Amino acid sequence: MKKILLLFEMPESQRQELKKIAPEYEWTTTLVPSDDTVEIVYGWSPEFGTMLKDGGFKGVCWIQFPYAGVNQLPLALLGKRQIMLTNGSGIHTSSMTEVLFGHLLSYTRSFKKYTLSQQAHQWAYNEWSFDFVDKTMLVIGAGKIGQEVARVAKAFHMHVLGINRSGNKVENFEMIYPMKDLQNILPGADIVVNILPLTEETTHLYDSALFHQMKKGVLFVNMGRGQSVVTNDLVYALESGHVAFAGLDVFEQEPLPKDHPLWDMAQVSITPHIGGVVENYPKHIFAIFKENLKAYQRSQPLVRNCVDLKLGY
Amino acid sequence: MKKILLLFEMPESQRQELKKIAPEYEWTTTLVPSDDTVEIVYGWSPEFGTMLKDGGFKGVCWIQFPYAGVNQLPLALLGKRQIMLTNGSGIHTSSMTEVLFGHLLSYTRSFKKYTLSQQAHQWAYNEWSFDFVDKTMLVIGAGKIGQEVARVAKAFHMHVLGINRSGNKVENFEMIYPMKDLQNILPGADIVVNILPLTEETTHLYDSALFHQMKKGVLFVNMGRGQSVVTNDLVYALESGHVAFAGLDVFEQEPLPKDHPLWDMAQVSITPHIGGVVENYPKHIFAIFKENLKAYQRSQPLVRNCVDLKLGY
Repeated sequence: MKKILLLFEMPESQRQELKKIAPEYEWTTTLVPSDDTVEIVYGWSPEFGTMLKDGGFKGVCWIQFPYAGVNQLPLALLGKRQIMLTNGSGIHTSSMTEVLFGHLLSYTRSFKKYTLSQQAHQWAYNEWSFDFVDKTMLVIGAGKIGQEVARVAKAFHMHVLGINRSGNKVENFEMIYPMKDLQNILPGADIVVNILPLTEETTHLYDSALFHQMKKGVLFVNMGRGQSVVTNDLVYALESGHVAFAGLDVFEQEPLPKDHPLWDMAQVSITPHIGGVVENYPKHIFAIFKENLKAYQRSQPLVRNCVDLKLGY
Repeated sequence: MKKILLLFEMPESQRQELKKIAPEYEWTTTLVPSDDTVEIVYGWSPEFGTMLKDGGFKGVCWIQFPYAGVNQLPLALLGKRQIMLTNGSGIHTSSMTEVLFGHLLSYTRSFKKYTLSQQAHQWAYNEWSFDFVDKTMLVIGAGKIGQEVARVAKAFHMHVLGINRSGNKVENFEMIYPMKDLQNILPGADIVVNILPLTEETTHLYDSALFHQMKKGVLFVNMGRGQSVVTNDLVYALESGHVAFAGLDVFEQEPLPKDHPLWDMAQVSITPHIGGVVENYPKHIFAIFKENLKAYQRSQPLVRNCVDLKLGY
């Protein structure tokens, strides 16, 4: 009997449901690399990755990865073995958006400062603010998440521009530009948001040169991947004041080392990679899996979140 | 020559502009209570209020108050002396909205917690979150500000209900209910926001009984007036866990006393009455004043933000 390997949390209610809709499969949670009856993998683990590299699990046809970023998976190997990969892209659109605006407001309405004042029982009124109204936000990596970010930014009366690979229109954006126009668009933005996936091209994209093409006093938020930023260059741009604020959910090295200078910077807001934290995550990933499974059972192309193994997203 | 008394910041560029559009007026910043040639007052000061009470400034016809809440002005006196009052209502719609979401995100995405972790150089990942998606927000006091709050809440995929005096429809709300339905609507809300002005009816509206009509685990944000809340009852509701979180921009006593228990509560976010802080405030209030002045010069009714002296807003 064919098997589905379970490497991600699946509550009992979901197991019951799957028994009904996929009675032709057995379920296992045990990693036996010589078991070539495993056809579908729900989830992922580093151990499984290693066994795959070592030539195990010869029968695997499809992996449903539970998260969005697949940059740590052996994509070339999957391609060589013709294993289909689907991911959890889209589940995090709302959480990413909420965390992004939390970072911005921690600075623009001084919430970081006021949290510290509260700890000291200090009523520290100040008249400074950075209003969202009429500011320009540039979203670099305008896709599903960017579309949600833009919806909220628009509701806050911002102008929202986007950059993506194709330059093709995306809902909620005033304008979308292709990546090659980045240098021209950058100086006009009051807020720059990175949501790019990590690929060869986006590794260390944000370096000293790019930060200095931004407007002086720009707010920068990184919700994509830490490796897209040359961290030392960002620290320097913050120290010089060219970048007024950085909201960072991702870092080149995670956890961020205890002695890193970013921790102590008043103009930096740090969260420990929480953009993907969603209430009741298993419910969302299971919904995607079910849709794909239905197609898979009919030998049709998978319908949700197919990863292009060459592009890496 | 008739005079305009200036009691609010007016940059030189605005003074130049006014010279052109109102050449029939002189300008003064000096408080001389026996000066009955003062016809228009731009701004307000407690000293001016006292002089008015003492029967000074007999020629005043119109006061352009720069802020929204007029509860501290001698409204009965103004009524008796038939002085028209316009206020700064509407200027703060965006700042109020931004501060409100800052409070919410400080809890729902743990920004308050992460600010404190950052101070301690701690990478304190946790999987808890309160997603905005599909939550119900109840805005008590659905007017101009509520309309903006609802726009953003909708963009975050919340359901937004409102309560106002009339129960009349307001843009961006799914439903509006009249004040008398408050008790029925309250238990369905995940988030309760107070933006009511302070009047006799709204003083100490939020007491133990009302907090306990809310859903257990509710998030409460007060962006209206501190005196609408019985603070001790709120502290008790927070301690018992019935109210999971309170975001407070206003307090019964401001500044909040140093030894108040609210300061030390992890589930409370405190800002020092910053809902009205707007970038370049003088620009916004001057724009309202100019429109009203044009009507005033033609002896037409004032067009922007006329305060009903009986209703108090």
